[in-house]
Amino acid sequence: MDTRYELLKAEIHKKEQVLKSGANKTRHVGLALTFLFVTALISIFYLQYGPEALSPFESHKDTLYNGRVPQCPSGIPPPASPPAPVNLWASIDLEEAAQIRRWLEAPERGLNLSAVNPAYASSDNMIYNLEAYYPTKTEALAYLESPLSVSIPERYARVTIHHGAQPEPIVKDYLVGPLPVGPKTEMRELRNPSYPDGIPYNARGLFLNEELAQFLGRVTRPLADPMKDLFGGVVAGLPNDTLSADVFGPFSFDGEFRRLWVTWRHNTAGSFLQPVGFYQYVDVCGTDPSQWKVLKIVYNHQIFLSTEAFLVAFHNGTLKRFPSRPGNSADLSWSSRKRVGLQLDLDHLPGPRSVSFAGLRFKVDRKLQYISWMGWGLYLGFDRDMGLSLWDIRMRNERIVYQLAPQEALAQYAGNDPIQSGTAWLDRFFGMGALVQDLLPGYDCPHEAVYLPATTHSDVGSFKRERAICIFEHDTGRPLTRHMGFVDGEFGAVKGYVLTIRSISTVGKYFDYMLHLDGTIEVRVSASGYLQGGFWDSKQDGYGTKIRDTAMGSLHDHVINFKVDLDIAGVHNSLLHTSTSQEEISQPWFDEDWGQTVIQQKITREYITNENGALLKYPSNFQGGYALVNQEKTNKWGIPRGYAIHPGYSPTVVGSKRLLNSANWARYNLAVSVQKDSEPSSSSMWNANLPGAPVVDFHNFFDGENITQEDLVAWVNVGTHHLPGAEDSPNTKTNIAASSFFLAPLNYFDYDISIDSTNAILLTAPETPGDAFKYNDYGVKPAYCVPGATPPFEYEGMKIYDRNGYLAPPIGVEDIRKMTQMYHRILVEL
Amino acid sequence: MDTRYELLKAEIHKKEQVLKSGANKTRHVGLALTFLFVTALISIFYLQYGPEALSPFESHKDTLYNGRVPQCPSGIPPPASPPAPVNLWASIDLEEAAQIRRWLEAPERGLNLSAVNPAYASSDNMIYNLEAYYPTKTEALAYLESPLSVSIPERYARVTIHHGAQPEPIVKDYLVGPLPVGPKTEMRELRNPSYPDGIPYNARGLFLNEELAQFLGRVTRPLADPMKDLFGGVVAGLPNDTLSADVFGPFSFDGEFRRLWVTWRHNTAGSFLQPVGFYQYVDVCGTDPSQWKVLKIVYNHQIFLSTEAFLVAFHNGTLKRFPSRPGNSADLSWSSRKRVGLQLDLDHLPGPRSVSFAGLRFKVDRKLQYISWMGWGLYLGFDRDMGLSLWDIRMRNERIVYQLAPQEALAQYAGNDPIQSGTAWLDRFFGMGALVQDLLPGYDCPHEAVYLPATTHSDVGSFKRERAICIFEHDTGRPLTRHMGFVDGEFGAVKGYVLTIRSISTVGKYFDYMLHLDGTIEVRVSASGYLQGGFWDSKQDGYGTKIRDTAMGSLHDHVINFKVDLDIAGVHNSLLHTSTSQEEISQPWFDEDWGQTVIQQKITREYITNENGALLKYPSNFQGGYALVNQEKTNKWGIPRGYAIHPGYSPTVVGSKRLLNSANWARYNLAVSVQKDSEPSSSSMWNANLPGAPVVDFHNFFDGENITQEDLVAWVNVGTHHLPGAEDSPNTKTNIAASSFFLAPLNYFDYDISIDSTNAILLTAPETPGDAFKYNDYGVKPAYCVPGATPPFEYEGMKIYDRNGYLAPPIGVEDIRKMTQMYHRILVEL
Repeated sequence: MDTRYELLKAEIHKKEQVLKSGANKTRHVGLALTFLFVTALISIFYLQYGPEALSPFESHKDTLYNGRVPQCPSGIPPPASPPAPVNLWASIDLEEAAQIRRWLEAPERGLNLSAVNPAYASSDNMIYNLEAYYPTKTEALAYLESPLSVSIPERYARVTIHHGAQPEPIVKDYLVGPLPVGPKTEMRELRNPSYPDGIPYNARGLFLNEELAQFLGRVTRPLADPMKDLFGGVVAGLPNDTLSADVFGPFSFDGEFRRLWVTWRHNTAGSFLQPVGFYQYVDVCGTDPSQWKVLKIVYNHQIFLSTEAFLVAFHNGTLKRFPSRPGNSADLSWSSRKRVGLQLDLDHLPGPRSVSFAGLRFKVDRKLQYISWMGWGLYLGFDRDMGLSLWDIRMRNERIVYQLAPQEALAQYAGNDPIQSGTAWLDRFFGMGALVQDLLPGYDCPHEAVYLPATTHSDVGSFKRERAICIFEHDTGRPLTRHMGFVDGEFGAVKGYVLTIRSISTVGKYFDYMLHLDGTIEVRVSASGYLQGGFWDSKQDGYGTKIRDTAMGSLHDHVINFKVDLDIAGVHNSLLHTSTSQEEISQPWFDEDWGQTVIQQKITREYITNENGALLKYPSNFQGGYALVNQEKTNKWGIPRGYAIHPGYSPTVVGSKRLLNSANWARYNLAVSVQKDSEPSSSSMWNANLPGAPVVDFHNFFDGENITQEDLVAWVNVGTHHLPGAEDSPNTKTNIAASSFFLAPLNYFDYDISIDSTNAILLTAPETPGDAFKYNDYGVKPAYCVPGATPPFEYEGMKIYDRNGYLAPPIGVEDIRKMTQMYHRILVEL
Repeated sequence: MDTRYELLKAEIHKKEQVLKSGANKTRHVGLALTFLFVTALISIFYLQYGPEALSPFESHKDTLYNGRVPQCPSGIPPPASPPAPVNLWASIDLEEAAQIRRWLEAPERGLNLSAVNPAYASSDNMIYNLEAYYPTKTEALAYLESPLSVSIPERYARVTIHHGAQPEPIVKDYLVGPLPVGPKTEMRELRNPSYPDGIPYNARGLFLNEELAQFLGRVTRPLADPMKDLFGGVVAGLPNDTLSADVFGPFSFDGEFRRLWVTWRHNTAGSFLQPVGFYQYVDVCGTDPSQWKVLKIVYNHQIFLSTEAFLVAFHNGTLKRFPSRPGNSADLSWSSRKRVGLQLDLDHLPGPRSVSFAGLRFKVDRKLQYISWMGWGLYLGFDRDMGLSLWDIRMRNERIVYQLAPQEALAQYAGNDPIQSGTAWLDRFFGMGALVQDLLPGYDCPHEAVYLPATTHSDVGSFKRERAICIFEHDTGRPLTRHMGFVDGEFGAVKGYVLTIRSISTVGKYFDYMLHLDGTIEVRVSASGYLQGGFWDSKQDGYGTKIRDTAMGSLHDHVINFKVDLDIAGVHNSLLHTSTSQEEISQPWFDEDWGQTVIQQKITREYITNENGALLKYPSNFQGGYALVNQEKTNKWGIPRGYAIHPGYSPTVVGSKRLLNSANWARYNLAVSVQKDSEPSSSSMWNANLPGAPVVDFHNFFDGENITQEDLVAWVNVGTHHLPGAEDSPNTKTNIAASSFFLAPLNYFDYDISIDSTNAILLTAPETPGDAFKYNDYGVKPAYCVPGATPPFEYEGMKIYDRNGYLAPPIGVEDIRKMTQMYHRILVEL
């Protein structure tokens, strides 16, 4: 047991924050044991009914003769041994956040931050985001090279402030540090070259949406009667609380305006699939909601330039109505996840469950969020924008990847209505990390998964998820290698285990990082959850499929970009392009029988030497591929060591007109540029609403630099073109809606290292005819023991801390939803 | 327990064959329990130490307070309920084979079959193959429609005979039946339109290779000294038994000749990676081995037109030698699967193991080889050519697939030597079913997998594998669907189980059929095992990668074709092509802010109406796809019910010049043609050696027929372009060397049926702030019990039966190898 762990409850209720000092101290994180740990202890207690419980596994026979089966080891991972005693990419913890907030709110900072929580207005100053600012790669590598002699890089926070109270409102980023807050702590502006004076306020972030809800209430109140008549419902806030609103983006083109399309839906489970086909276009420029206004109303392909014009048409009978009205009488339960069919044969039994009978084989340092398994070792990071990231990924103590992190997620739709035809999301804006909620033990991850927490910080306080990340070893059910033969030494198999590190963002995307025994890293994104459904009418044909009476699954594209900062045998790498083509070649050894020539594939290997040539698509028919290699470091056979970027499921890309230059990364399957501290990411949280003049234009990374034996970053996409069908209702399925890529060793090693695994078998044919084959299982046999009981299911949801770092009093789920989801399902206050 | 099972041993040793009569009786199959079943019974006996063992699961608390944990149910699958009491596609069993052989060998048949076993010569008459001949689809469907009233279609065998003793030797296929053999049994020739008089004898099959080994011994004996000098070894058969031979094809172009390239390798574990760079081209036309001769010898890019010419050059010093000699002194162990590295941290522990604590949830009828699980039901078939096939696949009792069966596997290589540049395999020739060996319990399939047997029949007798096929339920570790939300009914997950049906052919290919809960069928082929390695010298650059001192991983392509006879809501289906393209469209509801036009994707749906338009590649960037739909049967929302053919991993294809018209199916990702009894398969076992005039030319299927609302067959490929690296040594890995496709419901259902699963959870947000979420797990909780001990590992290999159906006396593995592998590693008799 790792005695460094501390119970969570002892800490979170404390009323005093103890500020700690000392630059090199290991930071105190509000980390503790999950419920799983506690129940595991209880299980041990219950099950420990004999001294043999702690003895090594007895042989089956002995055990059975005794009539007792030993208990299995607990499900607690052994402590890991990180290469350095610090996680350089650790998130800002609760205590740090409270310190920083207090420091920023101090009068001497002059920031005039609103202190009233949570009734923010656009015209307030507020801390919009607060997160760790990563050290430069140079600093980090220098430290990791000699953690005993080089001091830990100083720690900083990036703070994003909405300056809404200024005469010219603006959004600015600041660097605050060094941390912990002390006499040396300073702040300075982080200036983006595209917006040296700050981000236009019309592209600002979403926050607690009371203001917007009140505005929508004001402009929708006159529509209450028509909406009741047309849609069988009225907007939320009234007793018959049947409709809710949602807004769609982008909200701005270049910061000149802020305008939202609003759609209305039945306020029911799975409302995303239940739009009623009524749309408002609203102008919400500036910080004065009294100036906000409705620009257009669209209903059944009719456009009205004001609410009044719509009301006139409604009352004088000129309004052309939809033929069918999905009203109160309709059964709306179809978009719920509630079961409807009969139980299937044997489905009353639980399906197979994976158990590490001999104990978990991966190690975890919960404090440092470091994980090791079968030669792999890596640190975890977590941030508001994109959630989970992986750092300093090493195999057998050699770094392969410095940083593996999602960058942005694009989703764009098509349709014959203002919403679906105009929607182009960049999910980083909403904060894919902020939208991570607790995982469901036993459902989102196998029962024996180990969970790690994550905390993000917004204007209203901090959000901590105890089960933000899960880690589990998984038997793929398929050997990694296998051969059947009769010569001694060639018949055997290596079991195909992978270690999965997972996080799920509530928009329905699974981020899976799977480490394989052979040095391969699999990155897979699987989508599930509700579609952004459209309102079906016959004019929507060509943009989707009718999936219910008036509901449409709309054609849409997803592309998700990953930063893959590979370091192959050091930081100096090159981009190898391998392709194959047909050649017809004459060979003297052929005869007339077949002809003197042969047509065959031939490999062309070329190094792409300049960034400008490194915006890439996978070759047609996958004839060839791309790898980062180190030309100066060869394996034992003289081949440059490398890692291939190998396509997995559904490698698709899109150009996006709506997102213009905000998502230029989405146009390629992969791209390779020189690693630069000034190019840390392919996107930013502001790109979503500045497509005309983005904060980060990915194309700017590609400015003619040499990429031969330089420190290179690969930007790799996954994606799908999704044309939904009836089977996407109620939810899209992860088996088909998946995309992936592999980072696979390519002459990086001298041979397949997975052959060293001892969860393997080697068979030898018998010398005496008829005998069984001899085998060597390396002494690794299935353990025979009683696994601990699975803890009862439990789900509490995220914990909210106020801006001072204190656990906030419990609030209703509707308030939690508003704080965390903000834009989805706006219950309008009339 | 299924009392219909009979123990194997009681039957296989019986000395008398009891011939049974009656056309409609259920055929008696030599099917019985596997070792697993026996040990499961033993486990039950051992563990049954209390009456509570058979009672329903107690709650955790009760159990714990009692201090006893109940035992889990056995790992025996419950019996299934097939829709008909017969498997129409069952393999010929041992008894049937013996009956048929006896009947064919009777003098009145006049076949003059050689009866001496196993010393066949090319000039003998022999039964080369004996297998089930399937009923026509029309017959089968009529029976399955009314199994109680329609009589079972008559059963027939297809018998392939090598007529080597004739003046004009030839190969012919015969239909023998009805079975069981009786007074009505007859035989008639099965004439192929391309070869109405029979298959050219030069394209005949491989059989026990004594004759070839003797010939190679004769022509290689004079080379013993040079080979010892050049390669540090001599050919097999001498005390220093260090080299073995292998032959490469195609052997013929159109049956006019039969010529083989011979390569020599170190006779060690993984000899496939250890060629020495010495090649002979031999002519083995006709049936008189004394006429066979060496045409060429190739060594280090020098060609000699006779053995004598090579010997002259060797002795007079004009032979240019390779710079390095991989000789006796070299360590050849690197191509073994034996471990070399240190044991990894915690790898002494067994990894996680999947256990169905509450008992298996799939049902099996071993006798009929019928399986059911979660609404799915299907029959299994197995044949010599391609092994495992799936028949009458139904979901919720509605047929989706009539036949799902691999057809052919192409592998073609590139290189600057006669072998790699000339090799183009079609593995059906060797018999991918015949090459299936027993699976390794716990390694090839999870411990709790259920195994089914398979038997094939060749010239020397019958080969039975007790563990040819494995079936297991697998937790993918990822929910199939999932959504997090705060409205009652929208927050929950469905666990992602799949049922896997697997067989492995010894050339190293895993055939996995995975049934998903939502109606999706995943077909995946994963490759592992040894590469066909080349001899590395610098002139091989461009065709592969050096993976050891003188070993090369050669560039090669695999394509494997599947017949997918989909029947979507009946047999009359159409081919829907969906594609997307960009449109710029003007919309009145847009403003000047974004412009009045929008650029978006638009769907085009068109039916491909003629076979000639149905030779298809996946669209670039996967923008669109293909589905078989029934235009006359719509789902509840008016959309034609359909199944999409969805690409998975690595959808690649090749044109093959060497295989010319023998593998035209390999040029497309998929193709759709009208189902015809006269077009049962895209290839044949003879296609390999008749590329110039194949028995089956796939292109002939596409002769302009209408495919609108006809009975259609989809021919779908998986494949890889494999450029090996050092990590393909010793064996290629299944994680990267994989290719797959999905058959996915597309508006086939009215909604996602997997939502009906009760291995699922639905959460409801708490009404009282701070409370935990309420949940509904449908009463399905993890079982808490002691699973039975895993049986000790055991591997016996296949059982050989003589031509009379009697279990043959045990023979040495070298003889088994020769009988089963034939062409690999020929130990030459000097």
